[in-house]
Amino acid sequence: MEGKSFVLKGDVCYNVSQTEFRTLEAGYVVCVDGASAGVFEELPERYAQLPLRDFGHALIVPGLNDIHVHAPQYGFRGIAMDLELLDWLNTYTFPEESKYADLAYAEKGYSIFADDLQRSFTTRAVVFGTMHVPGTELLMDKLEATGLKTYVGKVNMDRNSPDYLSDQTAEASLEATRSWLADVSGRYQNTLPILTPRFTPTCSDELMEGLGKIKAETGLPVQSHLSENLSEIDWVKGLCPWSSCYGQTYDHFGLLGGNSKTIMAHCNYSTPEEVELLRATGTYVAHCPQSNAFLSSGIAPIRDYLCRGVNVGLGTDVAGGASLNMFRAVADAVGCSKLRWRCVDQELPSLTIQEAFWIATLGGGSFFGKVGSLDEGFDFDALVLDDSGIRSPRELSVEQRLERYCYLADEGGRLAAKFVAGKEIEL
Amino acid sequence: MEGKSFVLKGDVCYNVSQTEFRTLEAGYVVCVDGASAGVFEELPERYAQLPLRDFGHALIVPGLNDIHVHAPQYGFRGIAMDLELLDWLNTYTFPEESKYADLAYAEKGYSIFADDLQRSFTTRAVVFGTMHVPGTELLMDKLEATGLKTYVGKVNMDRNSPDYLSDQTAEASLEATRSWLADVSGRYQNTLPILTPRFTPTCSDELMEGLGKIKAETGLPVQSHLSENLSEIDWVKGLCPWSSCYGQTYDHFGLLGGNSKTIMAHCNYSTPEEVELLRATGTYVAHCPQSNAFLSSGIAPIRDYLCRGVNVGLGTDVAGGASLNMFRAVADAVGCSKLRWRCVDQELPSLTIQEAFWIATLGGGSFFGKVGSLDEGFDFDALVLDDSGIRSPRELSVEQRLERYCYLADEGGRLAAKFVAGKEIEL
Repeated sequence: MEGKSFVLKGDVCYNVSQTEFRTLEAGYVVCVDGASAGVFEELPERYAQLPLRDFGHALIVPGLNDIHVHAPQYGFRGIAMDLELLDWLNTYTFPEESKYADLAYAEKGYSIFADDLQRSFTTRAVVFGTMHVPGTELLMDKLEATGLKTYVGKVNMDRNSPDYLSDQTAEASLEATRSWLADVSGRYQNTLPILTPRFTPTCSDELMEGLGKIKAETGLPVQSHLSENLSEIDWVKGLCPWSSCYGQTYDHFGLLGGNSKTIMAHCNYSTPEEVELLRATGTYVAHCPQSNAFLSSGIAPIRDYLCRGVNVGLGTDVAGGASLNMFRAVADAVGCSKLRWRCVDQELPSLTIQEAFWIATLGGGSFFGKVGSLDEGFDFDALVLDDSGIRSPRELSVEQRLERYCYLADEGGRLAAKFVAGKEIEL
Repeated sequence: MEGKSFVLKGDVCYNVSQTEFRTLEAGYVVCVDGASAGVFEELPERYAQLPLRDFGHALIVPGLNDIHVHAPQYGFRGIAMDLELLDWLNTYTFPEESKYADLAYAEKGYSIFADDLQRSFTTRAVVFGTMHVPGTELLMDKLEATGLKTYVGKVNMDRNSPDYLSDQTAEASLEATRSWLADVSGRYQNTLPILTPRFTPTCSDELMEGLGKIKAETGLPVQSHLSENLSEIDWVKGLCPWSSCYGQTYDHFGLLGGNSKTIMAHCNYSTPEEVELLRATGTYVAHCPQSNAFLSSGIAPIRDYLCRGVNVGLGTDVAGGASLNMFRAVADAVGCSKLRWRCVDQELPSLTIQEAFWIATLGGGSFFGKVGSLDEGFDFDALVLDDSGIRSPRELSVEQRLERYCYLADEGGRLAAKFVAGKEIEL
């Protein structure tokens, strides 16, 4: 589709609230200059001159936002699933990430990642690179070419990291960050930098303080990890005895709230104080249900966060999660919330499919701006889903077909088209 | 591949114990008259005359056995996931199953199920039909044509069932069963009948007693459900106050052990007495992790069952589970066991990928006979998996590639060939 003003026709489904879908059979979705001009049962006369693509009975839904994924871990997705977080990092993850010092290896790995992400259901993503500046810039080049909108972070880590994967000092780490930011400033249309302290265990107070200053100066957003694993939380208590909760080890240095947005991945075991801190600072929780199962981390109380008004988005967290498929993440969010209700806390009802889809679209979408809906005024991010290969003897409603697609995207579903801010992505 | 004696060449991986894989790069797997003649690093001279198919670097692994799946529920897989078991049955499942009284609807639904099962990773399956005899015979016709080996059950239910889906009396249910058995006796090469009381809540003592007699007379195997959901278990206590555990409501009527094999699906909350009953009678637990998550049922303590020597196989339990993909079931068995370890009981270590793959192959395979391995003497059930579409910058071992396939079968994997008892299945 050339140009950024056009009309799509198909069976439309998207959230009008956290708990409700709006559906239209054979509806019209209008894109004008890369933004939605609205969803209509009949095409308004004023749009009759725009090029129209009729997708028949394909589903048209908002794009999905993966707000936590590690690009250099993509090469070992689906293997090395036998350890918990801290041992997993030391045994598998750090050695693999160290290979991205080599640009030839990074070229191979990031080409595959960017290519697969382009063809995936993800329209926008927030991505960890490694500590290496040239590799991270290469990753940004690759992602820019996909047409997806992404934030990408050069990782900071200056303590409790192996020699082969550590900034030598806080100042060296900060200097590398400033140099990276200077390099990429204004270089891309779709790809923006995000400050990325790996997590408190690998970031000295001095480094955190420096990153807080860069955030204050630049208004750049931040991503990191928080309260993922019980051993990690104990470790942070020992490393930062001055903190009253893990979240405070970021907030103390100005890394939550203020002049920019922050994403904290996981938050499986946040204390009431920490949850209130997340809420008060507008911090986004990146919920990563598959990773939290496969690394034996646990299940985050997402229902509680939604009730309290904490911002929540969804992440695949490859390679703690194996799958880049965001529909799978939606289904896993529902399934894991049910197991949490059953096994952990029957005070917190499980998530519905509408709520999980909301988290994957509007929930994480607002991190990027007006993103995650097909309603008027939102950036035109859309997926066209051919579900004719998921066969049934039944007549299904549009809503049922979207629910089914969340569970069975890879088992008979086909992504027919994908748009980001009105630009069609090559599949 | 014509004929049932041939050689396959590829990267071979299969369990030599519950905890260990054997792998061969560019190995030879020999099939003679439908059974394995062994796996070899070099092709023995005596097999040099057999036709050889070289699959290059595709993986060759044993077929996967789905020992619990409901064919008439396939049409609503992936929808209607918002209720627990008993409400789910009454609201969604019973109304859908009642449609299979209509052979035209059954033709549509079972054609899709059989076709998708044929193309799936499943080589053998144990299948619930409905209470309807003509529909169940149609299902058996369809499954026979796939070339897969299956057991199929006409469901018995004579109480606590809606009028529109209930045998009128125990005797009517038994008479329908006898009539069905007479019809299908000797009719099929691959498709065998299995006695199928739905579960204790819908089967009167009189019906159970009659089915126990048919079992004793015929030596037919049995399948049912056991201790899936806490409300169900409470209900059974009320219905059968004479029983000391839910399992006894089957055993009392001779439905466990003795002259044939029995499968009990789920066993999420079996008491120590019940577990000992399952072990002593050689009953198979059909572990259905995805269904147990999506119906909010819980997580079965499979590690405990393995330690105690209870027979365990794996099931998709469509449509409690959404996916027919048995590799997905393997990955879910690992993931759910990790969540159980984390959230429920840290005395029971989680399952490894080797153990979960063992359950899907040899664990459930022994229900069918000498099935589930590529070793000499086993029925030649094999999958050839092209994983070249799951790209990585890394060199991976054969074992790592199989592990990865369990997590990512539908995300870049391709089933290149499938054999059941030496017969190639059309894909």
